Parts: sequence; C-alpha cells; structure tokens
Amino acid sequence: MSLPALFDLAGWSAAHQIVVEQALARWVSVQGVATATATATAGPPAALIESMRYAVLDGGKRLRPLLVLAAAEAVSAGHPAPTSSVADESALRAACAVELIHAYSLVHDDMPCMDNDVLRRGKPTVHVKFGEASALLAGDALQALAFELLTPDETRVPAFRQARLCRLLARAAGCAGMAGGQAIDLASVGLALNERQLREMHQLKTGALLQASVMMGAACGTLPAAAEQALARFGEALGLAFQVVDDILDVTADSATLGKTAGKDADQNKPTYVSVLGLAPAQAHAQALLAQALGALKDSGLPDTRALQGLAEMVLSRTH
Amino acid sequence: MSLPALFDLAGWSAAHQIVVEQALARWVSVQGVATATATATAGPPAALIESMRYAVLDGGKRLRPLLVLAAAEAVSAGHPAPTSSVADESALRAACAVELIHAYSLVHDDMPCMDNDVLRRGKPTVHVKFGEASALLAGDALQALAFELLTPDETRVPAFRQARLCRLLARAAGCAGMAGGQAIDLASVGLALNERQLREMHQLKTGALLQASVMMGAACGTLPAAAEQALARFGEALGLAFQVVDDILDVTADSATLGKTAGKDADQNKPTYVSVLGLAPAQAHAQALLAQALGALKDSGLPDTRALQGLAEMVLSRTH
Repeated sequence: MSLPALFDLAGWSAAHQIVVEQALARWVSVQGVATATATATAGPPAALIESMRYAVLDGGKRLRPLLVLAAAEAVSAGHPAPTSSVADESALRAACAVELIHAYSLVHDDMPCMDNDVLRRGKPTVHVKFGEASALLAGDALQALAFELLTPDETRVPAFRQARLCRLLARAAGCAGMAGGQAIDLASVGLALNERQLREMHQLKTGALLQASVMMGAACGTLPAAAEQALARFGEALGLAFQVVDDILDVTADSATLGKTAGKDADQNKPTYVSVLGLAPAQAHAQALLAQALGALKDSGLPDTRALQGLAEMVLSRTH
Repeated sequence: MSLPALFDLAGWSAAHQIVVEQALARWVSVQGVATATATATAGPPAALIESMRYAVLDGGKRLRPLLVLAAAEAVSAGHPAPTSSVADESALRAACAVELIHAYSLVHDDMPCMDNDVLRRGKPTVHVKFGEASALLAGDALQALAFELLTPDETRVPAFRQARLCRLLARAAGCAGMAGGQAIDLASVGLALNERQLREMHQLKTGALLQASVMMGAACGTLPAAAEQALARFGEALGLAFQVVDDILDVTADSATLGKTAGKDADQNKPTYVSVLGLAPAQAHAQALLAQALGALKDSGLPDTRALQGLAEMVLSRTH
C-alpha cells in the first residue's frame, strides 16, 4: 500500500488547488451568481459578496475539494472514454460546493454565540471583520450558493447527477450531518463522553462532510455498488482520522502553526479524543483509522487511487 | 376577474394547510430525516430537531406552501391524466422546502445581531426559547433540510424535477435572492432609499422566495414557455404587493394582531413603502400590483387559476 514512486502528491495537490481557487473566485462573485429569477432586476449586493469571498478565498488546505476531485478521478481512471480531468465541470462544482458548506460552517462556528473565535487561518474571523449580522448572512448565503453551484443549466451537468449531488450534500450538511454534530458538540461541553459518544458526535460534525466529499466525487462517474461501499468506508475512516488528528494538534501545536487558537478545546472543557483516550492512544487510534481507510481503498478495486491514498496519508501527517 | 362563486378559497386553504402541517410534522422529525451516509450510526440529535420543530410547526399562514400547491394544481388542471392532487409528492415536498427556508430566515432574522426580536407568531422567538447558538444551528439545519426534502430517492420525484426545484430554491434563497435582500436591508437602515431602490431590496428579500414558490409549483407540471413567463410576472407582482402590505400593516396594525412587534420599521428607522410613498399612495400601489398580478394570471391561459387568484386577493386583504 505504499505510494508508487512516480505519484507526486504535492504536485497533484498544488495543481488541483489552483483550479479550485480559480473556480471559487469565479463563482463567488457578483458576476458568478445567477439572478434569482427571470424577472429580477437586481443582482447580489456587493457588500455581501465581499464578506462571502473573504470567508472562502485564499485560505485553507482545500482538503474537501481535493477529496472530491481525487475520488472523481479514481472512478473515471482507466475508462475507455475517460471523463477524468481537473476541468470536469461536475466534479469541480461538487468540489467548490463542499468547500462553501465548510466555509459557512466556520463562519457561523466562530461567531460570539458559538465558539467566539477571533482568529481563523491567521486572519480576523468574518464577524470581527464585517460584524455579526453580516457574518450570519454570509454563512447563510454560502450554504445556498453551494446548492446553486450544484444546479446549473442542465447542459453543464446532467440532471440526475445534480439531484444526486444535492442529495449527498444536503444530508451531510444538515441535522443528521454537520449541523447535528455541532448541536451535539454544543450540548457536550463539560460532559464526560465515552469513546462511542465522541465518535458519533464527530461522525456527524466532521466526518459526514468529509465522507460526502468522497461520495460526491464518486457520483461524478460510475462504479459498481461494492466499490461505492468501499469508498464510503474509506471516507468514514478518513473522516474520523481527521478529527482524531485535529484533537491531537489542538494539544500539540501552537496557534501560529494552526492559524487558529490552539488549546481551545481544553480551555472550553470540550471532550476530545485526547481527553478521552490520552495522547499516545489517540495517536495510535489515528494510525489504525488510516490503515482502515487504506484497506477500504484497496477493497474498492479501483485501478488508480493514488491521490486518495496520498490525501489520507497527508491527513495523518499534517501539522496544522 | 372576480372569483367564480363556487370556488371556496377558505376551504381550499384550510384543507391544504392541514396537509402541509402534517407533512412538516412528519419530515421535520428524528424519524423523518435521512441519515447522512450509508455508514452513519448516529441519527440527528433530538434537541436540534426540537428547536427546528418549534421554529416551523403550528405557526404562520403557510402562504408560500399554498402558492406552491396552487401553482402545481393550476399547471395540471385539465390535463388528460391529471397529476393534480394535494398528495402529489413533488409539490408537497416543494411546498415544505420553501416553508423551511422561510422559517430559517425568520429564526436568523430575529436573532440579537439582526432584528433582536423576542416575539414571533405570538410566541417567544427561537433564540429566546433555546439560546442563540441553538437558534443559529436550527436555522442552518432548516436550510439544509429544505434541499434534503427536494432530493428524496428518485422513485418519489423524478431526478430532472429534483434538479429544477433545487435550482429555483437555491437562487431564491441565496445572495441574489433572500439573503441578498436581507444584506441590503441591513445596510439601508437610516438611509433614504428611493422607490426603485426599495423595490429592488424587496424583490430580493421577500419577492424572490414568493415568486419561487409559484415557479416551483409550476415546475411540478408542464406548461408552455409563455405561460411560465406569465406565472413569473404573477409571482413578481404578488411578491411586491405582499411587501407593500407588510409595510402598511407595520404602521396600521397592533402587535397582538400581527403576532410580532408592530411599528418596528419606524422604530428602527428602516425605509418602507409607507415612509417613501406615504400611507394612501402605498395602499393604492398595493392595489395596482394586485391588478398586475391578476392580469398576468389571465395572460397565462391556464384553465383554472382560482386558487392562485384567491391567494393573491388574500395577500391584499390580510390584516396580519
């Protein structure tokens, strides 16, 4: 399961990150947004777009978009008429839509009534920069824009795929996904969760959207049901591994490296994998989850999963 | 253009409201929400669902859902194989999805960083009842659930219609629709808007979602392009008329009748149709918009638009 020597993950990631950045810059803009209706005379207000761009552009590792694109390439690799390409519009729209959901969740999560954080990716958070009301609206508008990106004219993305992508994203973002996980997180401050409860919280809060990234990429191609199930297991293990590493970094890294406030979980008395398992067992658990993820990837039988494998290994070795 | 004597709008509305209430109660529930992924083990947290139900159930006139259902019936009336029925699942899902977007916007709009309102539909607002963080999450989850309702298994609603409904709703809810209108509203406090600026703000803030309600209902059937355009004009005029009446009621009604704080716009120094035009000209403007709406309805050439007509007249004659 080692990376074939010739696959250059850093180069692959850099090339795909550029494409994602360009697409986000194009779509999160006054020109990139469709008017609401055929009879509408007014476009989106520039100030709202500005706060949305601030929340989305020039920041983050773009892990979720990269997972979408890697999965899309994995399911199209080796096909007689390959649809695999960074430029494939379905996958690029899916990649950006997932990132918009992630970005909106950070904007709302940072607000005073939630985590009350002033620093994100090394910059003032959206509500610090634009005010609370604008942050609330920017987050709301980013969520809507995610679904707008997934539903362009049908000449661009087939309708059946639009429906499937919206279905995957809505479920992952909503009350049985990310928003639900945040609600559990909110309610669990100061509580002693056991490992199962902690896992269920994180499966919703972080895992659902990471897993959806993989499944949305897969939905941009065709693959056997068994391979799809294997990718779902890959996404699930990867999602949990990501959170375990996040909890470890909150303890071991400093704020400058993280680009956000370190030690926050402990300060806020939040249960984490480190507080529940201890540091060394948490590190071993992350390794075990990576092994699970890579095993599932192998089970998928897909001919070329090197980018997905590389991203999973990167999640484990990341320092911020 | 008077209502045919035999059409019972009150009866039609009451019957359809019950169906909408039942559907909302079924779908906004722990059991009604799909799990995020095939491998997920945890359902949505009960506390989050409770706050979402509080925001959505037992309140409101359900104008938007009724517009969806009335439009869906209008476009299917007289077809050889009528698909018209209150129970038509596409239309019912669209009706509930629009209402979830409306409900989430009220939850967020009432929050302290926005309008800071404590009373809605005669009850404490969501953040007063459950806290600000829960209100934020409930709104976020309601928006996601709207798109989840529109994308069930494809045996229930054809994929092409799912895509079209998501497209209409995402555009109407987002930065070139409702969220954009709220951003303009926020920025316009204390400013002297002219009538055009006021119209553009309300076309986004209120009009886009009301118009989308009509168009989403129409998307549940098939109709000629000219009829679709006529319905879009109907929805646009109706949306504006609604807002003009809203501004009038803010001045002329009391809080108990409105179920929310009256006189708020003037207190907050917000530009309204009454402040810009004066009371009597605003009332005349509302009548002119109703006439426009009814004219467009006639232009549509649809055989039975009595429910749509009745709803438009009700918007003008409402007292709260």
